[in-house]
Amino acid sequence: MNDKKNTRAIPATMKALELRAYDGQADSLALIEKPVPRLNRGEVLVRVGATPVNPSDLMFLRGLYGQKKKLPIVPGFEGSGEVVSVGGGLQARLMMGRRVACAAPLGGDGTWAEYMTTSAGLCIPLRKQTSLEQGATMIVNPMTAWALVSIARRGRHRAIVQTAAASALGQMIVRLAARRNIPLINIVRRREQTELLERLGARHVLDSSEPDFAKSLREVCRELKATIAFDAVAGEMTLHLMGALPKGSRVVVYGALSEGACLVHPGALIFEAKQLEGFWLSQWLPSRGLFSKFIISSKVQKLLAGDLRTEIRARLPLEKAVEGLEQYKNQMTGGKVLLVPGQIS
Amino acid sequence: MNDKKNTRAIPATMKALELRAYDGQADSLALIEKPVPRLNRGEVLVRVGATPVNPSDLMFLRGLYGQKKKLPIVPGFEGSGEVVSVGGGLQARLMMGRRVACAAPLGGDGTWAEYMTTSAGLCIPLRKQTSLEQGATMIVNPMTAWALVSIARRGRHRAIVQTAAASALGQMIVRLAARRNIPLINIVRRREQTELLERLGARHVLDSSEPDFAKSLREVCRELKATIAFDAVAGEMTLHLMGALPKGSRVVVYGALSEGACLVHPGALIFEAKQLEGFWLSQWLPSRGLFSKFIISSKVQKLLAGDLRTEIRARLPLEKAVEGLEQYKNQMTGGKVLLVPGQIS
Repeated sequence: MNDKKNTRAIPATMKALELRAYDGQADSLALIEKPVPRLNRGEVLVRVGATPVNPSDLMFLRGLYGQKKKLPIVPGFEGSGEVVSVGGGLQARLMMGRRVACAAPLGGDGTWAEYMTTSAGLCIPLRKQTSLEQGATMIVNPMTAWALVSIARRGRHRAIVQTAAASALGQMIVRLAARRNIPLINIVRRREQTELLERLGARHVLDSSEPDFAKSLREVCRELKATIAFDAVAGEMTLHLMGALPKGSRVVVYGALSEGACLVHPGALIFEAKQLEGFWLSQWLPSRGLFSKFIISSKVQKLLAGDLRTEIRARLPLEKAVEGLEQYKNQMTGGKVLLVPGQIS
Repeated sequence: MNDKKNTRAIPATMKALELRAYDGQADSLALIEKPVPRLNRGEVLVRVGATPVNPSDLMFLRGLYGQKKKLPIVPGFEGSGEVVSVGGGLQARLMMGRRVACAAPLGGDGTWAEYMTTSAGLCIPLRKQTSLEQGATMIVNPMTAWALVSIARRGRHRAIVQTAAASALGQMIVRLAARRNIPLINIVRRREQTELLERLGARHVLDSSEPDFAKSLREVCRELKATIAFDAVAGEMTLHLMGALPKGSRVVVYGALSEGACLVHPGALIFEAKQLEGFWLSQWLPSRGLFSKFIISSKVQKLLAGDLRTEIRARLPLEKAVEGLEQYKNQMTGGKVLLVPGQIS
């Protein structure tokens, strides 16, 4: 049986990156050798092929991600690999031997290791045409981009505003919105980012460092009737968005790059009936149901080489991860750094 | 015809309080003599019987109320009186000769005068048993208290949190919730207020000036499963509420006594699916439809001597209004100051 063959090939120990303190110091993250984790019912063991360094990982390392895990912990929220062992249960058994994109379990060790256990429900089988490298970055950004655009479409919003528009995720939203002819207002914080997005075909790009930003944002939101905003910045940015959007609009926060609390003028809530809410893929996706998840993941995979493609800047073995992180922190928009714990098929 | 008789009795000019600057200075408000306003179609002329000084009026005088009107302006958001002339239109004509509670028009002069024009839709006919004095304070507080409790009931929230619980409105919510057996968590900011509410029968009162306030609030919210909060304070209070309530809760802001922007931790939105929204009676009430408005106003009037009663501290003619305002500002929870422009029937 395949099952046995794979099980036999699994070593007793593995390489993993381990976080020891939420202080953002380089030496709080170390490469260690630890036992390959055991499986409970409903879980699968994934031999990790590739796993990216996302902005949410950097927040997590510094203790700024909303959900802290108990230390020491293996970081990494998403990755791809092969399911080499399963712990029982129908859904888990169906995953056996498959190439999957996978998300880390909510409480346990993550993807920055040679192996990870996670629940079968957090794995998405990959199509033949999808490489492990593409699959590694498929959940956090492409699925979120897809989810946000579909939230805007279901809510019948005539135009969308997004912040951090030059991020990998932001660029995906630019492409998705363009293909669907949804007017999109992009907010960036530097001039080079404006140029980058205009090269991608973005029509409306506003630089929040410009002095007349608030006024321009207000005007273009009203002109295009943008009644929903997706905000990855929070802090004062939320204040601007809540002020700029027309009456009855929604601001959906899905990140906190400013590292500050969202600010909201009470008048925007009371007199203008605006609403503030959040988005979390880990909550949105399970709420869709199994079939809908299958449809979405299939549609998203078909776009992984196109609208939902991810630029890869560097591929590093685990041994060079700490160094890679330092490099990535200094320049967030130049493409993803991918950790490659084993050999990519 | 009644119509003509009443019209004849209307003088050419009237006494009114006029605001000249949004600076909160006593001398920016002056008693003047000005023409009695003219009527447009759908409008009614109310001879004002009584009109209160509400916290929202004090915010308005200082330019801190969300909606600024063009200066100079007659302040005053609500009052009561007799409809002495109508400008045409069915709804307006039905109001002729009636005793009404009335709200000021959104853009124009308000109730702190001998006469006010407003749209017929902003008038509520009073029952025989309702005095002009009771009617004067019927809209801003009793209707809001009723609306908030009904929002909580419709949303099937098992318990409610409210801030500024010792305010006139807060006390009404205490009584309404007690009668309906809805568990209510009351937040106040001083010890005397705790005692006041406990005398009213409130079971859960938290003082935000106590050092363990945030922790206590969190515990009692989870214990009682309070999934909605009504917030008249904003600023950091919103941060506390959004943090304390269980996952999936709503915070509804209807005031901004702290005069600060609402603060919201992004994690409460993203990972805990909490929502922030506003409430404005001027928007909520018209959205109910005419029949529902009639039912609500009838139910509210029946409670004006009971659960929805307003304590009156002082009754002042317009000539003593400026002095009365100074008095009221220094002690917000001792009962309402009522301005009495004419003779109360």
